[in-house]
Amino acid sequence: MSLVDYIGKAKSVVDKFGIHVGDLIEIKTNSGSYIGRLLPRSHYEGADEFIVVKLTNGYNIGISVEKINSITLLESLENKKNEPPKTFQKKKDLPHVVLISTGGTISSKIDYSTGAVSPALTAEDLYLAVPELKEIVNIEVDVLFNELSENIYPEHWEKLAERIFHHIENGVDGIIVAHGTDTLGYTAAALSFALQNLPVPIVLVGSQRSSDRPSSDAFINLRSAAVVAGYANLAEVVVVMHSTTSDDIVGVFRGTKVRKMHTSARNAFVSINIPPLGFVKGMKYIENIAPIRTRNKNRKILLKNKFDKKVALVYSYPGLLSDIFTELINNRYSGILIAGTGLGHISNRLHKVLKSAIENDIVIAIASQCIFGRTNLNVYSTGVNLQKIGIIESQDMFPETAYVKLLWALSNYSKDKAISIFQENIVGEIIGRTYPETIFNR
Amino acid sequence: MSLVDYIGKAKSVVDKFGIHVGDLIEIKTNSGSYIGRLLPRSHYEGADEFIVVKLTNGYNIGISVEKINSITLLESLENKKNEPPKTFQKKKDLPHVVLISTGGTISSKIDYSTGAVSPALTAEDLYLAVPELKEIVNIEVDVLFNELSENIYPEHWEKLAERIFHHIENGVDGIIVAHGTDTLGYTAAALSFALQNLPVPIVLVGSQRSSDRPSSDAFINLRSAAVVAGYANLAEVVVVMHSTTSDDIVGVFRGTKVRKMHTSARNAFVSINIPPLGFVKGMKYIENIAPIRTRNKNRKILLKNKFDKKVALVYSYPGLLSDIFTELINNRYSGILIAGTGLGHISNRLHKVLKSAIENDIVIAIASQCIFGRTNLNVYSTGVNLQKIGIIESQDMFPETAYVKLLWALSNYSKDKAISIFQENIVGEIIGRTYPETIFNR
Repeated sequence: MSLVDYIGKAKSVVDKFGIHVGDLIEIKTNSGSYIGRLLPRSHYEGADEFIVVKLTNGYNIGISVEKINSITLLESLENKKNEPPKTFQKKKDLPHVVLISTGGTISSKIDYSTGAVSPALTAEDLYLAVPELKEIVNIEVDVLFNELSENIYPEHWEKLAERIFHHIENGVDGIIVAHGTDTLGYTAAALSFALQNLPVPIVLVGSQRSSDRPSSDAFINLRSAAVVAGYANLAEVVVVMHSTTSDDIVGVFRGTKVRKMHTSARNAFVSINIPPLGFVKGMKYIENIAPIRTRNKNRKILLKNKFDKKVALVYSYPGLLSDIFTELINNRYSGILIAGTGLGHISNRLHKVLKSAIENDIVIAIASQCIFGRTNLNVYSTGVNLQKIGIIESQDMFPETAYVKLLWALSNYSKDKAISIFQENIVGEIIGRTYPETIFNR
Repeated sequence: MSLVDYIGKAKSVVDKFGIHVGDLIEIKTNSGSYIGRLLPRSHYEGADEFIVVKLTNGYNIGISVEKINSITLLESLENKKNEPPKTFQKKKDLPHVVLISTGGTISSKIDYSTGAVSPALTAEDLYLAVPELKEIVNIEVDVLFNELSENIYPEHWEKLAERIFHHIENGVDGIIVAHGTDTLGYTAAALSFALQNLPVPIVLVGSQRSSDRPSSDAFINLRSAAVVAGYANLAEVVVVMHSTTSDDIVGVFRGTKVRKMHTSARNAFVSINIPPLGFVKGMKYIENIAPIRTRNKNRKILLKNKFDKKVALVYSYPGLLSDIFTELINNRYSGILIAGTGLGHISNRLHKVLKSAIENDIVIAIASQCIFGRTNLNVYSTGVNLQKIGIIESQDMFPETAYVKLLWALSNYSKDKAISIFQENIVGEIIGRTYPETIFNR
């Protein structure tokens, strides 16, 4: 049995009517009838009690098997597979957008017809899933990886940045990157540093709930991503994800200032230390007053996509021992980002080993595990001591963005230059205390 | 020059009128006159442009030196030091509360008369700082440590728990622990597990802004802590800290469910995954509908305060290598708490070394770095694989509480018992999906 096969009561119904995942069916219930394609089993609780159908309008519906009176097979998947592939005519007046698929929930469940849990995404699947997309933009799909995002590593960032670079050099109007949500924020930060002087937006999008669930946010997030990639007057790396519990407001977040703050909620992505750059409501992009880099197709994109140095992110906590740092020294790490406490602190019993790490040519920066707010090493004696040792501050960068920036800076610049660039704002990642006043340096 | 001496323009004024920190003075300005004691210099920006005075009503005020017309010395600190120490008569009908001072901002700046930055706290200092305290409770001050909280380690938790145990065995009506805010949440979690079956509340309190700043929250937090320790009908370990930007609402948070979420804001402490247990408004404690353990002085407190095992908290991020885990195996750690991504994931390239760690007798649990929400290892293949390896879930415990619990469980129980107890709710730290329904098991 594959993971996507129905189980329990739902399986009995599917078997009884002789239908299979991917089949076009008509379901009759007491409250009405529905025509659509049978999707694979949802992986969530109660999945044995309902079947999920993609309606012809592109939306999914979960139907309790208790309520089903009859199911009629209209077209089996087997027949459909023999049809010539549908082609989608490009409309000349629409913006041209490339969607790069890297895997994750947003990509994984949309290709229901294969019955596989983690299939690649084709343009056809995409248009089938979100039919209104073809009215918004001309989308070209580029399947780059097929990874759950916890498996996306810095070497993937290098390849992804390079691929985006080439598409933008070829003159597209915007990029969408479909990505798992687990490390979507890290990738957004990485691309923000790796691709500078952008002429058009790079939009990362994910979905917290897979498209086989009635409550999926995959469709609205994708549609909103297309609106931003095609039309928003900005040229930054942004994350486009549900931002309220309301169904129709989607947030547009700066790539270096956004963090996944909930394991499962649809509005899990939160803007840290600045407001969202804007929102998408329906088909419309609404700008905030935030200072942003605007679109300009004459701007020449720069690629600085090395992420090949060894940098560690070490969380500070009561009980942290020096052995971890000794190991990092012995293994010749180039940098350490400490997620310190409060204003950027770490116990004084570790100051000696940190000093030794710096003497061993390791660059050490400290951020705050509070996430919100900014470091300040001038208030308490601990901070003053850390500065004396040579530890640098992350200011209002939260630990993940600070880690990505330190890794990027050390991979692309000499050590001294990396230390100075880490402390400067270059793409809106460090905001002065009197926001808004951001200057986009790259 | 000591750190607390005035500088710049403020120093000129202090020198001109021949006054010293601790002196009782009268300041005349165009907008009125003020009588109070001169506090040490604030350590914050603009500190050279105002002087801070503790008014006779106990509140602090910062006065811009530009506006000062004259200062008259009413009583010098030198004379005051020769006075017999004030004693505070206990009032028979008030609850008896012990305040244990461990250091941190809340303790460090209140004893302005010594001019030292990190002095110990006496009952007299406390009553001088918050005069209304003596109308609320009879306070006995017990100075245990004098540490900035980033230096509080598990061995401090052991001593602190033991001290509280003895005070409670002696029949007090409540405990207040004054603690630095950096690791206040960790200590609150540690005490929650180390001291079970509580008859009275244990209230941790800190201050985000030191008492020499006009915006200090030290006084309202302390006063509110006294209200909870003396009167609230609860018997849990709680944190009492400002919870809104409004001045007069102070939150009462469960010790295992509270996290410092901002480096500097007064309302930095946030209840995670449950609402606050209650609030203090003025002198009144207002309960939420949350299920809590209520006061009962006949209940017999239990002490389980060992924290002597080696447990590491490892943050998961793109680029994390296996060498850290190899080091933990070689150094014979007992446990590892992984702050994983999303629902509790970590890259599949680390599964092999994690399996090896478990084969080497290390207990591994995973929490989510999202902080909000709960782990679920049943949704994606990564989670299923982690379960197969033998990794256990933290459910709705965020990484810091999960780390403290794992360390505590491994230090007080056999490995098998620790694994099972980690996954059970014992003091309200694991809440079912259908809150409120908590059962207090200990």
